[in-house]
Amino acid sequence: MRGLLCLLIPWIPWTRAEDSAMEEIATEKEAEESHRQDSVSLLTFILLLTLTILTIWLFKHRRARFLHETGLAMIYGLIVGVILRYGTPSTSTYDKAISCSPEQRAFTTLLVTFDPEVFFNILLPPIIFHAGYSLKKRHFFRNIGSILAYAFFGTAVSCFIIGNLMYGVVKLMKLVGQLNGKFFYTDCLLFGAIISATDPVTVLAIFNELHADVDLYALLFGESVLNDAVAIVLSSSIMAYQPTGENSHTFDAAAFFKSVGVFVGIFSGSFIMGVCTGISTALVTKFTKLHCFPLLETALFFLLSWSTFLLAEACGFTGVVAVLFCGITQAHYTYNNLSPESRNRTKQLFEVLHFLAENFIFSYMGLALFTFQKHVFSPIFIVGAFIAVFVGRAAHVYPLSFFLNLGRRHKIGWNLQHMMMFSGLRGAMAFALSIRDTASYAHQMMFSTTLLIVFFTVWIIGGGTTPMLSWLNIRVGVDPDEDPPDGVIANGSRTKQESAWIFRLWYSFDHKYLKPMLTHSGPPLTSTLPSWCSLVARCFTSPRVYNNPEQLREDDTDFIFNDGDLTLTYGDTTITANATTSLDGRRTKSSSEEALERELGGDYEITNRGTRLVFPLEENA
Amino acid sequence: MRGLLCLLIPWIPWTRAEDSAMEEIATEKEAEESHRQDSVSLLTFILLLTLTILTIWLFKHRRARFLHETGLAMIYGLIVGVILRYGTPSTSTYDKAISCSPEQRAFTTLLVTFDPEVFFNILLPPIIFHAGYSLKKRHFFRNIGSILAYAFFGTAVSCFIIGNLMYGVVKLMKLVGQLNGKFFYTDCLLFGAIISATDPVTVLAIFNELHADVDLYALLFGESVLNDAVAIVLSSSIMAYQPTGENSHTFDAAAFFKSVGVFVGIFSGSFIMGVCTGISTALVTKFTKLHCFPLLETALFFLLSWSTFLLAEACGFTGVVAVLFCGITQAHYTYNNLSPESRNRTKQLFEVLHFLAENFIFSYMGLALFTFQKHVFSPIFIVGAFIAVFVGRAAHVYPLSFFLNLGRRHKIGWNLQHMMMFSGLRGAMAFALSIRDTASYAHQMMFSTTLLIVFFTVWIIGGGTTPMLSWLNIRVGVDPDEDPPDGVIANGSRTKQESAWIFRLWYSFDHKYLKPMLTHSGPPLTSTLPSWCSLVARCFTSPRVYNNPEQLREDDTDFIFNDGDLTLTYGDTTITANATTSLDGRRTKSSSEEALERELGGDYEITNRGTRLVFPLEENA
Repeated sequence: MRGLLCLLIPWIPWTRAEDSAMEEIATEKEAEESHRQDSVSLLTFILLLTLTILTIWLFKHRRARFLHETGLAMIYGLIVGVILRYGTPSTSTYDKAISCSPEQRAFTTLLVTFDPEVFFNILLPPIIFHAGYSLKKRHFFRNIGSILAYAFFGTAVSCFIIGNLMYGVVKLMKLVGQLNGKFFYTDCLLFGAIISATDPVTVLAIFNELHADVDLYALLFGESVLNDAVAIVLSSSIMAYQPTGENSHTFDAAAFFKSVGVFVGIFSGSFIMGVCTGISTALVTKFTKLHCFPLLETALFFLLSWSTFLLAEACGFTGVVAVLFCGITQAHYTYNNLSPESRNRTKQLFEVLHFLAENFIFSYMGLALFTFQKHVFSPIFIVGAFIAVFVGRAAHVYPLSFFLNLGRRHKIGWNLQHMMMFSGLRGAMAFALSIRDTASYAHQMMFSTTLLIVFFTVWIIGGGTTPMLSWLNIRVGVDPDEDPPDGVIANGSRTKQESAWIFRLWYSFDHKYLKPMLTHSGPPLTSTLPSWCSLVARCFTSPRVYNNPEQLREDDTDFIFNDGDLTLTYGDTTITANATTSLDGRRTKSSSEEALERELGGDYEITNRGTRLVFPLEENA
Repeated sequence: MRGLLCLLIPWIPWTRAEDSAMEEIATEKEAEESHRQDSVSLLTFILLLTLTILTIWLFKHRRARFLHETGLAMIYGLIVGVILRYGTPSTSTYDKAISCSPEQRAFTTLLVTFDPEVFFNILLPPIIFHAGYSLKKRHFFRNIGSILAYAFFGTAVSCFIIGNLMYGVVKLMKLVGQLNGKFFYTDCLLFGAIISATDPVTVLAIFNELHADVDLYALLFGESVLNDAVAIVLSSSIMAYQPTGENSHTFDAAAFFKSVGVFVGIFSGSFIMGVCTGISTALVTKFTKLHCFPLLETALFFLLSWSTFLLAEACGFTGVVAVLFCGITQAHYTYNNLSPESRNRTKQLFEVLHFLAENFIFSYMGLALFTFQKHVFSPIFIVGAFIAVFVGRAAHVYPLSFFLNLGRRHKIGWNLQHMMMFSGLRGAMAFALSIRDTASYAHQMMFSTTLLIVFFTVWIIGGGTTPMLSWLNIRVGVDPDEDPPDGVIANGSRTKQESAWIFRLWYSFDHKYLKPMLTHSGPPLTSTLPSWCSLVARCFTSPRVYNNPEQLREDDTDFIFNDGDLTLTYGDTTITANATTSLDGRRTKSSSEEALERELGGDYEITNRGTRLVFPLEENA
């Protein structure tokens, strides 16, 4: 567990008194030798990543989409794993490995002692933060109701179903005599929680490249991002479920409610932590003129975002979850206060960190398949797990979609449902959760099985995405800027707008109070807050507004139409589309107008009631 | 020493077998508690840095130049150190500290056990790499001879003089009875090496802001960057100097030559490592079309640069030195092959890392003054050290400048010499070198003294830079693009051009062979290499040249005049000035032409021989 701290805080070697005594015994020579070995091991990882980058460049260059970089990283990891495992005859067991060449020993040591908490404390945070920070907010918030349903309800259903099915499988194994250790019901549920964390990184990369349906993208992305958080907290709660007495198979109501309490407590605590840090960063960047010094701004942004993680961990919450919500808050508020240079810098900084961390995890997975010493591969369990994963996903995607469609204006079509079903990849999060504890027999079996599921889904499903998209007739080549204009809503159909009431409620609160308070945009608080709050209102209203009353008007207009939005009036129909240029500069503003005109003749319902309701579209969409 | 590895490779907790047994004994509860404490400690560091950033913004905002951010970070560190030390009565000694509140214990543990190697393996590499990567190459290479002289000869002289003076001081202390432990001659020399590493980060920041004399900037920057490398290797060599027999005071020729051998070996080995990785990165980026995918390119760049460090450490060389030369090579070759986005990304990435690492070191220094448990403050030693440092610097700046002026066309004036003398700040490198080993009495005394010297120089000299500049009549507000055009060289005065022969030799080799081989610019190798190398030449000549013969011409022209260079002809006088826009976009190209004309009427010697010799100026200058 100390390794955790050592890694959480990479530059502080938590050398305790006991160690220093021990260390003094070790000779300088030995230390130097092991230092050298460590460097060699790490060099190999760098070589792996370099190879992955170069190969993936070749793939991208030739537009080959059957293998994503993460899949490739796994393959290279596998190859190195095979070499390490079978390269020399003496490395078949760990004990023998100890007596082999220094390089091999370094590797084996590396792989055996690689602290699983490192995934949680070093590698996952940048990945998850990036996911939150790069959220395409417009489509996310438009589908917020469905996303929350999939993430919370869906993950819980999936976890429960997989857990119960696996309990059946375990019983079967016991019957057949294939079970060589204890495997409790809670272990099954834990496996359900671990394997319910979807990670459609491959699918989304392909969607992004092909510009597939934006709503599908938003649903899958939102679901996968949030269900990571749900799965982490769910697994913590299940671990907290300790029934009184020895018989762990019976249902204990007290323990169950304790678990539910733990879930709610940890989740909301982490949520609040993340949001609070995001808000304080927004306030700091709003009320200082830090944007004149992009370097200071970026450094501050980085430090405060990182502090979320530490704060949450210090309070006993889940850092990764806090970081996710911090990322979303930063993207929604702070991002708008940053200087253009800092926007680029922060995006790029986290993009690079995310890229490196993700590929490291996947290449480590490849390595682990052959070099992890305590694999327990049980054919029955593996087959059962594959079936359970499939059933678990089907059991929440289809029913939930059915219920959601009752309330949605833009129905989630059958083809989208099939695609969602298909895209249930498992990746970094499932791996990190499963490697976290591999002490018991049950956990080892779960780890090995998870590894196989990740391999299978990333290679097979990742590779099958493009054919599947065309087979399901899902439209590709959609410009995110030309998707169904969500300003086109007549009074009559407003209630049918997807997640309408949540969205409307949230939107109006955000627009009236939060945005003006935390950013430089929106109507001045002095006009939205009741008069008795005028002091607060004056304090929080952007100083820019006071300095330049003209700006106030502009800012306001900016917000209603939002930068780059086009509002065209065709007779008494008002349409708004967002023409924001994406950060990588690949998309241009130009197409929006024609796109809109095209859309007008397309399959989107245009009302002619003349009621103009323009939903502001995010600058950062 | 294990901590080193643990930090070198931040995400790998080098948990050894002994530890895991130990760890299993520790209960989960304890681990959780210490995890929480660690988070709190780190949060405090983040708070310190955040405060520093906000305050420094205020300072910059009000254009206050008397305190640099590093100085400020030290002050905040000091304040926290004082609070920790005197905040509660029970923390006066380490033993008592152990029994105080969890937060304080966490802090004290943190400060007591903070592994010094972390400075070398985590914090210094990004700082040093950034220094190399952001080198203003044009002025650096123009003054390369002087810089090398100051860095190598100057540092050696300074080390030797300080070492000998301190040996006198130590003898005096023994005489007075103030010495309570062993203090060998080698310790004195080591102190000389440690304290000879100048780090004029503060001065250079102010120079940059005021646009002070570019040659002075280049000399100081080049000297400080290279003498860090010299000081590291020098201190390693001194540690390697172990005379046979017990009497360490006698001169042992064998040991001395061994030390010299170690110095040459480590330095050249690290140099070669760094340059090789730089070159391989250049080749990879040249021959792949990775520049279409800036993320992949940046990731590759980062990984390969980091691998230099590991490679050097794995081979027993000095990683920090390798990283420096890698940075210089990357800036000189690879940078030109990168896509514009990657250029920005890499610059900004390393800028942020550098900023965070540097401020962390300085705030840690502040903390260390009050919380380090084994300080040995000896008034005589401290006073002696201050005098020795002063004498040591004077003894190389003035004599070396005199000799260099014999060969230089642009003399180093008295005011510049005084400024160089004045700018001998000690900073991160001296601190990192001195904290590396604080086991013996002598080393503890050296550490405490170094800390005081750093404080004094950063605050007093840092604060006095602006007044000193005006007092010494050093011109400020110089546009680096309008400095004496170095293309204005007639045949007759060429030999007097600063570091002319080294520069010419290097330049023509670089221009004819290295640039065309490693980048897309320069004359094609097929024309510069002898005919029997035609196969090699064809392999290495940029594929772009073959794809587009037009480009070849352009590339060539680009190189001779270089992007943005202006070549004006006044009668038969040719002048070249570089009008490169700096990366931060603050300077514009516009001023160059007028600037040149102004310069023509100014104090620069213009020859009218009509011989046109245009030295290509670096794009990255």
